[in-house]
Amino acid sequence: MARTYLEDMVVGSSFGGEIYRVEREEMLEFARRWDPRPVHVDDAAGEAAGFGGAIASGAYTTAIFTLLSMRSREKDGEHAVIAGLGAELRLPLPVRAGDVLCYEATVLEIRGSAGRPDAGVVRTRGRLVREDGEVVYESTTATLVARRPA
Amino acid sequence: MARTYLEDMVVGSSFGGEIYRVEREEMLEFARRWDPRPVHVDDAAGEAAGFGGAIASGAYTTAIFTLLSMRSREKDGEHAVIAGLGAELRLPLPVRAGDVLCYEATVLEIRGSAGRPDAGVVRTRGRLVREDGEVVYESTTATLVARRPA
Repeated sequence: MARTYLEDMVVGSSFGGEIYRVEREEMLEFARRWDPRPVHVDDAAGEAAGFGGAIASGAYTTAIFTLLSMRSREKDGEHAVIAGLGAELRLPLPVRAGDVLCYEATVLEIRGSAGRPDAGVVRTRGRLVREDGEVVYESTTATLVARRPA
Repeated sequence: MARTYLEDMVVGSSFGGEIYRVEREEMLEFARRWDPRPVHVDDAAGEAAGFGGAIASGAYTTAIFTLLSMRSREKDGEHAVIAGLGAELRLPLPVRAGDVLCYEATVLEIRGSAGRPDAGVVRTRGRLVREDGEVVYESTTATLVARRPA
């Protein structure tokens, strides 16, 4: 399979289209293991907090985002990612069981890396968009991507 | 159990001390489910990338961070968190099987919320620190926290 190197990436290009349906049991199970706050594991607590039921842990939504991001990058040749360096996240709206989330992403910036002449840093904005068009998760990530080997 | 409301929080105060040992099988299993890039599921791929073996998915480290953060906040009375609003993450060093990570956090800022007179926004810097003192994960989070009911 072709690999996508730093030189193959284009600022402003978009990718995505991957879909994930949030299943209630999986959402609750993830929260019981990693984020067992009442609002994430108990419908009554979510109701009392004004959410109409349990809502997803941000860590669970991050895992979904990570999975769709990876699947998307596999489609057009695996991106030659060396490492994730960091991210800014926004969680503008709660995620609920039954939500169908669509991944979309845009390359914002490509620049060299001072310490790694064999690679560069790609800043990408990714989103999870609900069926009704509302953004429930937005992440701007900085990723170290390899240059094409000489 | 006492709850910690917005009024109980103090800028500059620190908390933490919770410990997590990264178990190899759990690290790999999480990656196989949510982030099956070669470098996260395959020691040979991690070796070839210069990491000396498989390294943790950032989504897995985020889950560990979330768990320790919750445990820490339970200790001194559950914080009256309404919702996480966003975060800035840095992943300065890879996490590996066998690492022992310690959670520590400091309250950076407390301010009112324009739309929620019953709550305020707390900005907290949290870290996962390895046994050798190196920071492997740093997150500045914005959290909506309830004021004490009248």
